Amino acid sequence: MAKKPSADEVRARLDDVARSLEAAPGVRITDLDAASTPSFDDGRKTGEKLLGTIGERMSELQERLYAHGRSGGDRSVLLVLQGLDTAGKGGIARHVLGLVDPQGVALKAFGRPTPEELEHDFLWRIRKALPPAGRIGLFDRSHYEDILVPHAAGTADADELTARFAAIEQFERELVAGGTTVVKVALWVSRDEQYLRLRERLERPDKHWKYSPNDVDVRLARPAYEAAYDEVLARSSFDVAPWYVVPADRKWYARLATSALLLRALLDLDLDWPDPSYDVATELARLDATR
Amino acid sequence: MAKKPSADEVRARLDDVARSLEAAPGVRITDLDAASTPSFDDGRKTGEKLLGTIGERMSELQERLYAHGRSGGDRSVLLVLQGLDTAGKGGIARHVLGLVDPQGVALKAFGRPTPEELEHDFLWRIRKALPPAGRIGLFDRSHYEDILVPHAAGTADADELTARFAAIEQFERELVAGGTTVVKVALWVSRDEQYLRLRERLERPDKHWKYSPNDVDVRLARPAYEAAYDEVLARSSFDVAPWYVVPADRKWYARLATSALLLRALLDLDLDWPDPSYDVATELARLDATR
Repeated sequence: MAKKPSADEVRARLDDVARSLEAAPGVRITDLDAASTPSFDDGRKTGEKLLGTIGERMSELQERLYAHGRSGGDRSVLLVLQGLDTAGKGGIARHVLGLVDPQGVALKAFGRPTPEELEHDFLWRIRKALPPAGRIGLFDRSHYEDILVPHAAGTADADELTARFAAIEQFERELVAGGTTVVKVALWVSRDEQYLRLRERLERPDKHWKYSPNDVDVRLARPAYEAAYDEVLARSSFDVAPWYVVPADRKWYARLATSALLLRALLDLDLDWPDPSYDVATELARLDATR
Repeated sequence: MAKKPSADEVRARLDDVARSLEAAPGVRITDLDAASTPSFDDGRKTGEKLLGTIGERMSELQERLYAHGRSGGDRSVLLVLQGLDTAGKGGIARHVLGLVDPQGVALKAFGRPTPEELEHDFLWRIRKALPPAGRIGLFDRSHYEDILVPHAAGTADADELTARFAAIEQFERELVAGGTTVVKVALWVSRDEQYLRLRERLERPDKHWKYSPNDVDVRLARPAYEAAYDEVLARSSFDVAPWYVVPADRKWYARLATSALLLRALLDLDLDWPDPSYDVATELARLDATR
């Protein structure tokens, strides 16, 4: 059995993962290998065991974060998940966020905007869904849909896109300044793997509900979406909130890598248990008097 | 190894659990043994294993419920959890709801009403937090606080309480008619066990945040709360939404019994995977053309 790594070793390992996944300047998403497993070379079995270990540590730190939120702290973590259909966003929600206490989690999936949402600025519905202090939030799709969709469809002009990027940058800087750690993950699934996953949805009656005819329409427009992703990675990987591109053809890997990024964000908060807002000795005496 | 039980056997077993926990007419909560383990006599180790098995089954049925919600279905399940401080409501949220996909769960904890909430009818904030179709909702405290607190404090007169019970009955009947299965669980922790749990919160720095001086105030008023619970059980155990009283001195038991009640509710929905809203053969051909 391997020796338990020290806190410094864990930290160095997680930094290594982050470095290997951070979107490099000028990266083109189609140049990346969606089946690769950067920073984790020991295969699925080892990876799944490691996910369990990461989950336990995440769970402890999540409780500490929650305790802070309940004690007036302003910290929170927001995981922004983007990815083409079948990239595995739902699987991350289930198998990564599922590792921690559901009370400490705030999940939000963004679909096509409702008529009410369309009457507001595109960030309106996003702001409403931000995690409260003390929580880990997950956005399954996000404000980036408001760049990706019009970009891919060619329905927004360059000035509009520039204005949206500027609004997003300001928004995310504001979030970070307010105590929210923003972790942005683009899950990258290959064309071939996407085909297999869509086919499985059509072949298995228990997966039919996950399929929509729109999935093929979007698949046909895949090159336009890839270009839109390149643009997003190039223009919104801010110092305070960089993009990570996670290869997602291997589900175990995408879950492990995303959980490592999340654990790193939680460790960075560096939170102790909050001090009590009452006098412990006094309360012990009061309690004992009721025995 | 025991033979896997048939669906009928599982169902009969769950009915047995429900029968043993349903609040009997005229029950007095202080007559119940909070350390007992009705319907599960094989101890903690077996109980914890069984919780894992129940969790797997719950998880499957939760996904089916979610699929229905996504396909236009109107069914949902609402677990209403009540209990004195330290009864273990948070533990149920974590260890029971934590067994299923967090995407399919809607948790809401109700604290002291905010000024905005007080400007509305007491059911206003409750209605806003109802689980959407396809979800399992959990209320950690609920509209019953609006009976329990004024009853225990003696700040509501008989007419007011009667009006609230009537409003609650109408509300819950409306919920059930609209497709929501309502499972109401009162967790029952003894005076002695409550003392030990509060003491642990004061002794362990990692639990200080869970303690509030108000906990001792409420403990001092415990007889008044017990009488309020008796009143709630007597007057709001409706045929469509009965109360279950779950002995909670043994945490493993409270989690197991509550998960059994939840599994029974999910089985009762009797849902198949929803039919696709598209033609499968057509979509297979469209997809294959993109290969």
